[in-house]
Amino acid sequence: MKTIYITRRETFNAAHKLVQPLWSDEKNEEVFGKCANKNWHGHNFTLYVTVKGKPEINTGFVINLKTLSNIIKENVIEPLDHKNLNLDVPFLVGMMASTENLAIAIWEQLEEDVLKHGGELAKIKLIETENNFVEYFGGKEPF
Amino acid sequence: MKTIYITRRETFNAAHKLVQPLWSDEKNEEVFGKCANKNWHGHNFTLYVTVKGKPEINTGFVINLKTLSNIIKENVIEPLDHKNLNLDVPFLVGMMASTENLAIAIWEQLEEDVLKHGGELAKIKLIETENNFVEYFGGKEPF
Amino acid sequence: MKTIYITRRETFNAAHKLVQPLWSDEKNEEVFGKCANKNWHGHNFTLYVTVKGKPEINTGFVINLKTLSNIIKENVIEPLDHKNLNLDVPFLVGMMASTENLAIAIWEQLEEDVLKHGGELAKIKLIETENNFVEYFGGKEPF
Amino acid sequence: MKTIYITRRETFNAAHKLVQPLWSDEKNEEVFGKCANKNWHGHNFTLYVTVKGKPEINTGFVINLKTLSNIIKENVIEPLDHKNLNLDVPFLVGMMASTENLAIAIWEQLEEDVLKHGGELAKIKLIETENNFVEYFGGKEPF
Amino acid sequence: MKTIYITRRETFNAAHKLVQPLWSDEKNEEVFGKCANKNWHGHNFTLYVTVKGKPEINTGFVINLKTLSNIIKENVIEPLDHKNLNLDVPFLVGMMASTENLAIAIWEQLEEDVLKHGGELAKIKLIETENNFVEYFGGKEPF
Amino acid sequence: MKTIYITRRETFNAAHKLVQPLWSDEKNEEVFGKCANKNWHGHNFTLYVTVKGKPEINTGFVINLKTLSNIIKENVIEPLDHKNLNLDVPFLVGMMASTENLAIAIWEQLEEDVLKHGGELAKIKLIETENNFVEYFGGKEPF
Repeated sequence: MKTIYITRRETFNAAHKLVQPLWSDEKNEEVFGKCANKNWHGHNFTLYVTVKGKPEINTGFVINLKTLSNIIKENVIEPLDHKNLNLDVPFLVGMMASTENLAIAIWEQLEEDVLKHGGELAKIKLIETENNFVEYFGGKEPF
Repeated sequence: MKTIYITRRETFNAAHKLVQPLWSDEKNEEVFGKCANKNWHGHNFTLYVTVKGKPEINTGFVINLKTLSNIIKENVIEPLDHKNLNLDVPFLVGMMASTENLAIAIWEQLEEDVLKHGGELAKIKLIETENNFVEYFGGKEPF
Repeated sequence: MKTIYITRRETFNAAHKLVQPLWSDEKNEEVFGKCANKNWHGHNFTLYVTVKGKPEINTGFVINLKTLSNIIKENVIEPLDHKNLNLDVPFLVGMMASTENLAIAIWEQLEEDVLKHGGELAKIKLIETENNFVEYFGGKEPF
Repeated sequence: MKTIYITRRETFNAAHKLVQPLWSDEKNEEVFGKCANKNWHGHNFTLYVTVKGKPEINTGFVINLKTLSNIIKENVIEPLDHKNLNLDVPFLVGMMASTENLAIAIWEQLEEDVLKHGGELAKIKLIETENNFVEYFGGKEPF
Repeated sequence: MKTIYITRRETFNAAHKLVQPLWSDEKNEEVFGKCANKNWHGHNFTLYVTVKGKPEINTGFVINLKTLSNIIKENVIEPLDHKNLNLDVPFLVGMMASTENLAIAIWEQLEEDVLKHGGELAKIKLIETENNFVEYFGGKEPF
Repeated sequence: MKTIYITRRETFNAAHKLVQPLWSDEKNEEVFGKCANKNWHGHNFTLYVTVKGKPEINTGFVINLKTLSNIIKENVIEPLDHKNLNLDVPFLVGMMASTENLAIAIWEQLEEDVLKHGGELAKIKLIETENNFVEYFGGKEPF
């Protein structure tokens, strides 16, 4: 049996803003533009979580998708959905709410729990808008 | 020449919450659930603006899409994009920030300006998430 | 307040086949082609349910989408999801499992319950594949 | 049995330009902008053809989708796919190659043949880019 | 000339169920849930086949897409489309019909024929629903 | 801080044809089929540009997406959008206008400018139609 990758999609809607508190309003406006709006803006985020492994002989599964979905919902969707990323999320405190940082934080929320259920987290893809997304491989550089 | 309908898509990202200020927190939570989160949440909104008319003989156009796009950007996208729908938008003040109300308000922002440029506004479609959208025909009931 | 249309999307996956039991195998094969495969085939169906009404003053809602989603799940998704449309569904018994017939049956499952919750069912759109879908307006002919 | 609408999707890729030969280059550039590029540009067009009718009792079909697909391929896709809309298409000669005019011409190519096969053409939707599309109901104004 | 990857998309619709015949009904229900429905369910599968190579000098092609499409249709789409994955497909006999196993089997159906036509199979991506898909690189672990 | 990948989407519409001038018309027709149509055809191209790097501490950004978008627009979209790929584009002169060659040429247009702004170009994905796309990693073979 050979390694294969399986991906589960989940979604969440959240508010955020991009502001560096060490900077002046002018500098924030210059670097972040509309994303610095003091009263927030928001997005429909789409999250793809990829787990790698070999299909188990009795099920043909790398990981049961119900299990993976529950892991994602408990660790990521529950704390992020319909929340303010700058104010409401313990694991994002003190962090710039960029898509890059958010994807890395999501990886860290999931890695251990996926492992406990016999999978190996391989990739986080986080889509912020139809025009931009990030991909994180736990720091690896596959290309 | 016969009547035909042309549609332009534009997008905006915004924060909002659904809270009825006349109600208790419990009632708001019961009716609006996660959408009542006091620190806001947000969406990527997709807006489709439909104009009806007959193709002009020299251009084959009902309305020049550059013109229509400019009308939408000036009247709708500029005031809504990367904004808080409850706090930042003059034409939404005092209104519940539901998708229904937002679509009706967008129609009212566009109707006159489309008419000035020789078109007739026929429909607003506003997508809030992949699972829900509203359609408004200026109050008409086509079906 | 003016009439507006709100739509909820739900999905279900099901098996079916298209076979007219009064016909010979040859005739079934000729008319239905691969869709008559005796061992079934299946689809990811996407269902859009549209309700019309006027936004309620306190909520800005035509109908609460949680309510609408529950109505659809109970009356349609529960009996159809991961089922065989020819064998497993009481309200489809004796009916050719075409997308047309399925959409009409879904309308009939939903109409009364939507009405009880203060909405008026306006349209069922049922997507069978990316290349075909049907739309049903309760028998009305809007165009 | 009640009226229902069924839609078939087909695609074609074509080149065109928007130039009014009675106008100066400056006027064409002013009105059509980049779309007037003398060496052409092109699009992936997506076409949705909607037929209305009542489900036939033996099949549950308004029209057999294989039949509808063949009608569309023969009358529309074959003459338009991988073609130049200004130069290569007999039924578009002398016509501004706008999406509006193209949709109306497609309707006229299909109407009779759909009728011959027992259907009634109800709508043409033609998507030129993700940001614009037209809808034609044979000149009717449903909204 | 440098290595580049080209991908062809094809689709098929099929029925299947997930049942481990060595297990009790209770165990099957517990592990596979609705997917174990004895009368089957089904999906619209979307298949992406990626071939790597260097563009040939006269064509600019890694592989002619008509050739690749024919290879996929003959080896994969023909045997799978509108079929029951548990009953109708010789190369799936005795295999749990999971998306993982299906993707691996599709790789094995294609690898040799792609090679014969001068390409190198690099990846199979198989989408079962909008919420889950698998990726197979012939057992390699690129990330 | 660990390496992460960020992607920006841009679109352009262009005409092209696939003809090898050293070959006879018959050979061109045989190899390229409809794509050799002498009067051109065209596509809506979708371009995904991926940059890798570590999030900058003050912004959380690998690269500012406004900067990346401007680099792409100036170097790629401006010269390609609403153009003829065989006739109008200096950096494509003398090149077969295949999607493969186009993606490689786009990489070469972008690589240096991305580097100047502190990013490292990692991948070009170019979608020609919903059924085919190419991916280029600067000649690397990640899988």
